[in-house]
Amino acid sequence: MKNQNSITTMSGAKAKLSQTQSRWKVFGSKELQALAKIESSLMKGAKRYIEDQDFVWINAPHITKATGSCENFSTMFKMDYFGKKAYLSQTAQLYLEVLTPFLKNVWTVIHSFRAEPGVDSRHLTEFPLVEIEFEGNFNQLLTHIEGIISSMVRMAAVERSAELNLFEIDLNHIRRFNTPYKRITYIEAIKMLQGEGLDINFGDDIKTVHERAISKSIGYKPFFLTHWPQEIKFFNMRMNDSDPRLVNSCDLILPFSGEAVGGAEREYTYTRLKGKLERSKMLELLKQNGGSVEDFEWFLQFYKHNKANLHSGCGIGFNRVTQSLLMLDDIRACTVFPQNSSVYW
Amino acid sequence: MKNQNSITTMSGAKAKLSQTQSRWKVFGSKELQALAKIESSLMKGAKRYIEDQDFVWINAPHITKATGSCENFSTMFKMDYFGKKAYLSQTAQLYLEVLTPFLKNVWTVIHSFRAEPGVDSRHLTEFPLVEIEFEGNFNQLLTHIEGIISSMVRMAAVERSAELNLFEIDLNHIRRFNTPYKRITYIEAIKMLQGEGLDINFGDDIKTVHERAISKSIGYKPFFLTHWPQEIKFFNMRMNDSDPRLVNSCDLILPFSGEAVGGAEREYTYTRLKGKLERSKMLELLKQNGGSVEDFEWFLQFYKHNKANLHSGCGIGFNRVTQSLLMLDDIRACTVFPQNSSVYW
Repeated sequence: MKNQNSITTMSGAKAKLSQTQSRWKVFGSKELQALAKIESSLMKGAKRYIEDQDFVWINAPHITKATGSCENFSTMFKMDYFGKKAYLSQTAQLYLEVLTPFLKNVWTVIHSFRAEPGVDSRHLTEFPLVEIEFEGNFNQLLTHIEGIISSMVRMAAVERSAELNLFEIDLNHIRRFNTPYKRITYIEAIKMLQGEGLDINFGDDIKTVHERAISKSIGYKPFFLTHWPQEIKFFNMRMNDSDPRLVNSCDLILPFSGEAVGGAEREYTYTRLKGKLERSKMLELLKQNGGSVEDFEWFLQFYKHNKANLHSGCGIGFNRVTQSLLMLDDIRACTVFPQNSSVYW
Repeated sequence: MKNQNSITTMSGAKAKLSQTQSRWKVFGSKELQALAKIESSLMKGAKRYIEDQDFVWINAPHITKATGSCENFSTMFKMDYFGKKAYLSQTAQLYLEVLTPFLKNVWTVIHSFRAEPGVDSRHLTEFPLVEIEFEGNFNQLLTHIEGIISSMVRMAAVERSAELNLFEIDLNHIRRFNTPYKRITYIEAIKMLQGEGLDINFGDDIKTVHERAISKSIGYKPFFLTHWPQEIKFFNMRMNDSDPRLVNSCDLILPFSGEAVGGAEREYTYTRLKGKLERSKMLELLKQNGGSVEDFEWFLQFYKHNKANLHSGCGIGFNRVTQSLLMLDDIRACTVFPQNSSVYW
């Protein structure tokens, strides 16, 4: 088994999976074939859990208005759509949300696009995002996330033991993904990090270096960071009833890859949604880029004219799960056709 | 049951599913909820067949070079990709093909994008395309297509009988999708149509009006049109050994929706692929649009340096299967978020 006390540095045969130039040269390698089979089983494991829970698959749009944006509006790819401005989707969240009053449990896998200029071991410009939305609360959400991640890893372990062997992944690593996952609040995390002498305060983002410190302290297992400040999160995450500075949100941090899942309870009343959207940083950015709140018209109109209930959901960054399972230090090594700002096929 | 002797005209409740303006008003209708559940089961049925046949799922790129084009290069959406010209994928075919020498059976579901200006009952600008590629021949391909389509319909019939009832779909219609499907060669079809007094000759496309005439004559069941002229098909479809004017290709024509699947054996030697690409209409169009054969460099280099074997594959236009099963006359009524040149979300 690999050294578990640090992010693995790939060497030799596996390093070639990071190669993006002339990638066709890598297709014949046994590492790429193993990777493809593991990806396939991870996706199958996600689907099986979701289907077994009676979620309804939705065909979600990929060319969208600004409603296809997650937090980072500035990283949306723009395109001309028959003379109008459109974007490539980053999340189907809002499209799924409006169906929850009727269909209760919905899901999709979209291709999430990010106009990230960075050419490095951490950025891809497109990746599959597994998304669920359902009528239910925060605790049910955490249970579903645990269910999906553990089902993914279990399917890979069952179907691809030879391939996992090739990556030197053994049962001790696989067992890290056994549920339940530790739940740490944002405020607890800030205190932990301050206790380790790190310069971080309420309202700051918890960055990769911080995630790694926590990951190390709990033995490199998956953990949730919950109840983040509204200020630094998506506009429609639901306010926490006992501390209005916070929202009922969670990130799942996986060992060796970092944030792999973001989820939350959602606001579901017209008044709150309208108010929070109008005060959001995303709308500010949208306006700076020549857009307007009109992009959200269909979403707001829906909530104005329909009764909705408490619902929750999340998006699972597929390649980050692969990276964590395979303990790889380069996201480009975690999928067959990695794309970044310098390479596309 | 609906009148089976003509394409059904939707009336009343069902007609509202075609509404694209303010579509949020439709989300609460029981028709939309039934449609979503039927779509979900159709997709599940496709996946189950493919997974049961041990195909490996591939995460295929959606921002592509011209290698993401199917026949209609002129309908590719263009975009700026960090200063370079890129396109939105129409098919993952070539990306899957280069993996078949190693992984044998591969598949994916991409979102296929078409810059179709038409605002009518037949055009969508994006739709899911279920794609398979495998080492194997034409007969195996037809068997897989029959297997996927019948598995889709069976899953919907098993899981969604109440929803199918709402669309007035009964067992007599469901049984149309029982395999095997009739196989008619292109040349036979031309003769059939000439026999009915239609003005059509070898080398002409078989259009919707022709498909409907054949569909009627065989009792509105699915049928294959096989062995088309190379002239009007994708450059890498494999030449027929006994009649070099033809390629070993197939379209599957479904009752009430038309062409739902296109597939073929593929050329797999560098010399043939290079020659056929250089003589293709697609390359001509690409050059007229400021592109060049360089976009195909990775694909040609792969075949230059790797030994490949006979392989075949197809793409299944998901919404056309839904349309056929539900006997709807408007593609906009066949998915939750229909997008065309006038509407996006």
